[in-house]
Amino acid sequence: MTKTKAYGALDARSPLAALDIERREPGADDVQIRILWCGVCHSDLHTARNEWHNTLYPTVPGHEIVGRVTAVGSAVTKFKVGDLAGVGCMVDSCGHCPSCADGEEQYCDNGFTGTYNGPVFGGENTFGGYSQSIVVKQSFVLRIAHPEAQLAGVAPLLCAGITTWSPLRQWEVGPGKTVGIVGLGGLGHMGVKLAHALGAHVVLFTTSANKVADGLRLGADEVVVSKDPEQMARQAGRLDFILNTVAAPHDLNPFLALLKRDGTMTLVGAPGEPHPSPDVFALIFKRRRIGGSLIGGIRETQEMLDFCAQHGIVSDTETIRMDEINGAYERMLKSDVRYRFVVDMATLG
Amino acid sequence: MTKTKAYGALDARSPLAALDIERREPGADDVQIRILWCGVCHSDLHTARNEWHNTLYPTVPGHEIVGRVTAVGSAVTKFKVGDLAGVGCMVDSCGHCPSCADGEEQYCDNGFTGTYNGPVFGGENTFGGYSQSIVVKQSFVLRIAHPEAQLAGVAPLLCAGITTWSPLRQWEVGPGKTVGIVGLGGLGHMGVKLAHALGAHVVLFTTSANKVADGLRLGADEVVVSKDPEQMARQAGRLDFILNTVAAPHDLNPFLALLKRDGTMTLVGAPGEPHPSPDVFALIFKRRRIGGSLIGGIRETQEMLDFCAQHGIVSDTETIRMDEINGAYERMLKSDVRYRFVVDMATLG
Ligand SMILES: [Zn+2]
Ligand SMILES: [Zn+2]
Ligand SMILES: [Zn+2]
Ligand SMILES: [Zn+2]
Repeated sequence: MTKTKAYGALDARSPLAALDIERREPGADDVQIRILWCGVCHSDLHTARNEWHNTLYPTVPGHEIVGRVTAVGSAVTKFKVGDLAGVGCMVDSCGHCPSCADGEEQYCDNGFTGTYNGPVFGGENTFGGYSQSIVVKQSFVLRIAHPEAQLAGVAPLLCAGITTWSPLRQWEVGPGKTVGIVGLGGLGHMGVKLAHALGAHVVLFTTSANKVADGLRLGADEVVVSKDPEQMARQAGRLDFILNTVAAPHDLNPFLALLKRDGTMTLVGAPGEPHPSPDVFALIFKRRRIGGSLIGGIRETQEMLDFCAQHGIVSDTETIRMDEINGAYERMLKSDVRYRFVVDMATLG
Repeated sequence: MTKTKAYGALDARSPLAALDIERREPGADDVQIRILWCGVCHSDLHTARNEWHNTLYPTVPGHEIVGRVTAVGSAVTKFKVGDLAGVGCMVDSCGHCPSCADGEEQYCDNGFTGTYNGPVFGGENTFGGYSQSIVVKQSFVLRIAHPEAQLAGVAPLLCAGITTWSPLRQWEVGPGKTVGIVGLGGLGHMGVKLAHALGAHVVLFTTSANKVADGLRLGADEVVVSKDPEQMARQAGRLDFILNTVAAPHDLNPFLALLKRDGTMTLVGAPGEPHPSPDVFALIFKRRRIGGSLIGGIRETQEMLDFCAQHGIVSDTETIRMDEINGAYERMLKSDVRYRFVVDMATLG
């Protein structure tokens, strides 16, 4: 085991602070990575504060990890020392259930191992990317083709990127399709960029009139202020697909009404309290659907990273020092970030 | 115009009673049908009592119509006098919107014309199957291949049959698929029969332990009493698709938990009050979906009728006289019918 500097929480009420963790020595199948940048996801905050009531303390959040390979095990073929590498929300899964067999490890019937707050049922806790280094089996490590100068903006692709990419791909968003993106935060801004790059006509829905210009800059063809019933009415029945990134409880019906027949709205935000119950008539009368989607599989994550490298897509970021994380959490709660905090892990010292 | 005997309601509070309506003379494209049997749908009751707040009075319900052709217009090629014929929930649609072009007239962008309580926006009211005869354009009239002795049981196929058939077909229910049918009423008993005939493994969910034997007789491979958490737990993650026929507000989450990854639950019942809001986590963590479905298109209705004729499928019915309709409504409200009332229209006199 190797003593490793990290940043985490000892309980639900204390601010995050420096602490030491132990990392295993790389086994035959393992890749050891020095972490350069780590994106800050809302899940980090929920976990640090035990808002999902399942946090194992001490907890070290962070699952938008990019870094450089510092050691590889004898069986590792995908990476060599010095390569750039990424780690997202998962570091393991059972490998033999139908979902794992289909490359959809995020839906593993036996529960994937999270990059942090890992095995819920038995096993040791896992520690995430707010740390100097991490050791992960090679099949859960992603290759990075972006230029090194873009690396900070690559980190959020590992969660915010794949979470939006996977449903856009599942519902075949591309040329000839009109897609709505609801919410312009960490997820939503990636949804706009990716849907635009996939060739769809992108309509962004935001409650903030002051985000209209930004939405257009990010790639939206139209920006609708969703509080304005007239603007909403003009979109009725126009959308093939809606990616709804808003986690706060909200009325889904005004968005359902925008879907064409057979259209789907996929929710990727999980509200703390339930949304108002969606109108069954809105589903029945146009055969519409509401679905959910969870991150994405490893193969799909690599596909997304390669697509982003090819199209020059990264997240819009604000970089912070590790010791600024507690303030960053407070700003996230006010949606005061455009559009993702990324920690410069050199500042962990 | 032809004066035609019928049975209907003059207002929301009066019982249904005999009345006279006018039917048009058959035009070039029209089929005139003497009605032999008319099934009794919950929509009939909702409309008679103005429970959807859109009833035009007088109203003559009935949209599960079978009868014999008594006259055809000069342009009619599909039918000749003496043929058996059926009419379901629709008698017209715009014919040129994308849904109509796809043969999905039930989702017509301009609103299909209902067999009764017809054009909501302008136009004359339409009168349904609680009547001696009806005149319908040929493209909305269905061919009947069942033997005449089965005709009473064919009538409910025109609404209950197609409403369950359409989602079963859309979600490709067949051999190798495990499908749940929720509720054993007029819709549910058709769902069980059709899913069984399509070759699926059928699991029926009912709140009534005294319906278990009937469920098995109708074609279910398993019957689960949905109030029993242990029986429900044994079905977790087993179902490819759920057809939920229950219109009463109920908790959808215990059923969502039974779906495999990427499974869909389609709702065909529209509750008067909203269901409790479904759990977004249950959607996200297995990429499940909730959808709706409305009757089915004309082409699909013909396909269903032909399939049923070939497989000897009819509805289980209890035949009544026309003047027993008010008592039948009361029994329907108590789910006291196995499984569909059908009016012998000869009793209209
Ligand atoms: Zn995340
Ligand atoms: Zn697995
Ligand atoms: Zn009906
Ligand atoms: Zn139409």
